[in-house]
Amino acid sequence: MLRNACSKFVSMFAAAALALLLAPAPAQAQAPRNKVVFQVSDDNPQKWTLALNNAKNLQDDLGSDLVDLEIVVYGPGIGMLKSDSPVGTRVADALKNGVKVVACENTMSAQQLAYKDMLPKIGYVPAGVVELMKKQQEGYSYIRP
Amino acid sequence: MLRNACSKFVSMFAAAALALLLAPAPAQAQAPRNKVVFQVSDDNPQKWTLALNNAKNLQDDLGSDLVDLEIVVYGPGIGMLKSDSPVGTRVADALKNGVKVVACENTMSAQQLAYKDMLPKIGYVPAGVVELMKKQQEGYSYIRP
Amino acid sequence: MLRNACSKFVSMFAAAALALLLAPAPAQAQAPRNKVVFQVSDDNPQKWTLALNNAKNLQDDLGSDLVDLEIVVYGPGIGMLKSDSPVGTRVADALKNGVKVVACENTMSAQQLAYKDMLPKIGYVPAGVVELMKKQQEGYSYIRP
Repeated sequence: MLRNACSKFVSMFAAAALALLLAPAPAQAQAPRNKVVFQVSDDNPQKWTLALNNAKNLQDDLGSDLVDLEIVVYGPGIGMLKSDSPVGTRVADALKNGVKVVACENTMSAQQLAYKDMLPKIGYVPAGVVELMKKQQEGYSYIRP
Repeated sequence: MLRNACSKFVSMFAAAALALLLAPAPAQAQAPRNKVVFQVSDDNPQKWTLALNNAKNLQDDLGSDLVDLEIVVYGPGIGMLKSDSPVGTRVADALKNGVKVVACENTMSAQQLAYKDMLPKIGYVPAGVVELMKKQQEGYSYIRP
Repeated sequence: MLRNACSKFVSMFAAAALALLLAPAPAQAQAPRNKVVFQVSDDNPQKWTLALNNAKNLQDDLGSDLVDLEIVVYGPGIGMLKSDSPVGTRVADALKNGVKVVACENTMSAQQLAYKDMLPKIGYVPAGVVELMKKQQEGYSYIRP
């Protein structure tokens, strides 16, 4: 019985050791997935263009399949995503290339903007600033052009 | 004796296994505490208002008990926290709602500002830029309005 | 034989336990190395001065040996690193003090700038925005003056 108990225990230990060996390594030991969130909160079309250029450069350099990009637009920057945006064509290109572009519904509400006032195919988040926090919590790098 | 040794060993192993199970999971597996640090370094009252709006939105959306917020004011932004600040009332509201608001003593010294020249109840840090680094090291997300 | 198996096993277990104890602690338990990356992307010499002041403050407060600093200059900020930069002397001082200062080659190419048009001894990166992402992935705090 003792022999059985001990040998059963050895098996248990071996299983536990194997589980430890197969466990995922701590995050800092892995090559991080490339993820960048851009903040656009200035009422300045040059900043909007810079954000779009930055996103394009990241895709060109890293390969668009290898980087997750999101542009969060809120506050005084919201004009970037209105129907009459001077960078509307470039936003459409970014969306087509897989960049996520989202508008802040808090801002829209404060400025009495409806979805029909905005560029087509963009996304929406309840609060831009909460989205910027969450993305950083998920390991996104932050860039404010 | 062998029985004793082996059974004592089984107990030790069980205790070790239990300790492993009860050990805190690596950080990436836990829901992160919501923490955001804001940088205010522009001499622009609209930016000051935006920072205060952003802080309020975070508290409204997440619940003020569930998010740690700190606004670090330095360099050309220091006017936000001077006694005659155009956003003084809003800073007082933020402080009352649990937002930490700190002024950079390096900047105050460079601009010959004393504590009596500043809004009441704010906090102070020796160097705003060091504070911004430390907060990010502590897992705070960074927002620069 | 059983005694042998069991005592060999005890040794194995002790070795495993020791290995666990000696294993590096998860990153969040260690004091992080002080590392800060600065973004300079504004065509505004006051911002350039602020970035250089911020870097100097970090070195003064933490000790220049105890903090890794990098200033990434790109887009409309590139004038900071051109030969005729109004902050050329201060950039030279920063370089001498161990601050890494790099220009974005994407931006240089877009503005038809050659290496000979730039300040001496600065560094170069293929894309400023990729560098900003990589540094954050390496644990650098991000400051945008």
